[in-house]
Amino acid sequence: MTQPFSLIQHELEEVETEIRRNISSEVSLIPEIGEHLLFSGGKRFRPALLILCSRLLSTKSSKESISLAGMIELIHTATLLHDDVVDSADLRRGVESANTRWGNGASILVGDFLFSQASSIMVSVGDMRIIGTIALTTKKMSEGEMFQLSLEGTLNISEDEYLTLINNKTAVLIASACKIGAILENAKSDIEEKLRTFGEKLGMAFQIVDDVLDFSSDSKEIGKPVGKDLTEQKATLPLIFALLKMDKQERSKTEKIFLTDTKSKEDINYIVDLVTKYGGIEYSMNKAKEFIESAKEKLNDFPDSDEKQALLHLSDFVIERKT
Amino acid sequence: MTQPFSLIQHELEEVETEIRRNISSEVSLIPEIGEHLLFSGGKRFRPALLILCSRLLSTKSSKESISLAGMIELIHTATLLHDDVVDSADLRRGVESANTRWGNGASILVGDFLFSQASSIMVSVGDMRIIGTIALTTKKMSEGEMFQLSLEGTLNISEDEYLTLINNKTAVLIASACKIGAILENAKSDIEEKLRTFGEKLGMAFQIVDDVLDFSSDSKEIGKPVGKDLTEQKATLPLIFALLKMDKQERSKTEKIFLTDTKSKEDINYIVDLVTKYGGIEYSMNKAKEFIESAKEKLNDFPDSDEKQALLHLSDFVIERKT
Repeated sequence: MTQPFSLIQHELEEVETEIRRNISSEVSLIPEIGEHLLFSGGKRFRPALLILCSRLLSTKSSKESISLAGMIELIHTATLLHDDVVDSADLRRGVESANTRWGNGASILVGDFLFSQASSIMVSVGDMRIIGTIALTTKKMSEGEMFQLSLEGTLNISEDEYLTLINNKTAVLIASACKIGAILENAKSDIEEKLRTFGEKLGMAFQIVDDVLDFSSDSKEIGKPVGKDLTEQKATLPLIFALLKMDKQERSKTEKIFLTDTKSKEDINYIVDLVTKYGGIEYSMNKAKEFIESAKEKLNDFPDSDEKQALLHLSDFVIERKT
Repeated sequence: MTQPFSLIQHELEEVETEIRRNISSEVSLIPEIGEHLLFSGGKRFRPALLILCSRLLSTKSSKESISLAGMIELIHTATLLHDDVVDSADLRRGVESANTRWGNGASILVGDFLFSQASSIMVSVGDMRIIGTIALTTKKMSEGEMFQLSLEGTLNISEDEYLTLINNKTAVLIASACKIGAILENAKSDIEEKLRTFGEKLGMAFQIVDDVLDFSSDSKEIGKPVGKDLTEQKATLPLIFALLKMDKQERSKTEKIFLTDTKSKEDINYIVDLVTKYGGIEYSMNKAKEFIESAKEKLNDFPDSDEKQALLHLSDFVIERKT
């Protein structure tokens, strides 16, 4: 079996160097906060996808794919910094979030700094289509997060609305990572669209699994407490599905707990148990698996290669991950 | 006398349309917050500079200069949204700030949305140099704001540090507005550099006057309370200068007040009076005037025109404004 990350280990090491170069600043707090988040065990999922999609279409990796892989991780990190302020999150990857340690102001500004550096990398590569892709991507991400914010504190969200939401807030960036790999290799538009859709479906599955883990994972493993979404009054797919199955009394109690600002462990467990009992976890995991299958199908027409195998394994990893 | 804004009134109206087009979104809170800030009496100082610098070098204004003037106002507005969260500001232009009305999260995300839209406008214009200029500009702005954040709560800042700070946080964007006007007209590098420097010096004066108004203005006029910088524990030029003249006792009392979290009106007045008595206001206004004189000199070699006169009047306006 081809380990997806070992195939591009050399490139990923260069990506680390690229990232490090782009968080340097005379204002010493910037690299300090940048390092805290950028070198705290991120999986480099998006950079790996960009490099693998680029290599899928050529035989070797280009200097540009390294730079742009770094760029996409900077964008991702900038959005994490901002989202953690928006959500008043205490933890990120099991350690204190930047906003907890350094305050909201520093997190916002370092996020802005990283967005700017991402732009500079794109300018140095010099492809206007890539800059346009990222502009549209970050627009959709902020729209997704705003939509989520407007839904906070309501259980009145349909599965379709949920899917639109996670498409914007998560899938679009992963889709763009794959699309940029294709743009770099001057792929024809149908090939570019296949890889973009591959990334999009992968991204949908990625977020659904994330939301499932919030109901089922151990906080030590995932690096954030179980029921964090519930605490933040965010209704995700497992709950949206289970709500339809609950009787009137269960639904009413769930709503009451959901809307309470401080929830006890028993409160959280009450909802988690109901969601499990009514198959919300199972339903969501099946949905995620469907997205993964349909992502993998997009790769059918590509000839077999180590890169293709690596992309297929990465797809499985999205479903199998426990953190 | 040529009124600087009436000369380009037609263009500025088109800029309003361009801005309005770029804050539309299916997520209705985005245009709502965007309008709140973008149509609340901003002076369109940066768009006007960009258009005037472009017209200075050609005979008519281009479609691109309208788009980019809108772009520069979107960037400016995005940074205001973020800065108001960083500073926990209650007021902006005399009305409730967006973070007060809609919360920190919405302000951060709408700021990110506007940055993305600004990128899209630049992509549609298609000049890589302009995108590079803005990337470097927003990088420096975030560095300036971070530097300011790291200085909060200390009076230990030199005039040189202050000048570096305001260069990054304010002058660089105004300089870029002028530079982009020149880039649009394919100006030679010495012309481009002259207009960039003109904008930079104008921007330095602009921020110094802003800081002076914080000591001397009526809150109804400027739209924010007097002593706001003091409240936020920011030492600006009038205070930095006056501190050097104070005796030990005055300095000690000033420090004590400055570092207190809640300051009474008497406390604020004590410092304002000392700053005035020791000539901090006068010194700062003279410094601003020097910057304006040196900005105007940069226009010496341009043949006389309505646009040149308008730029000279805009320069005077920076010094004369009371809000």
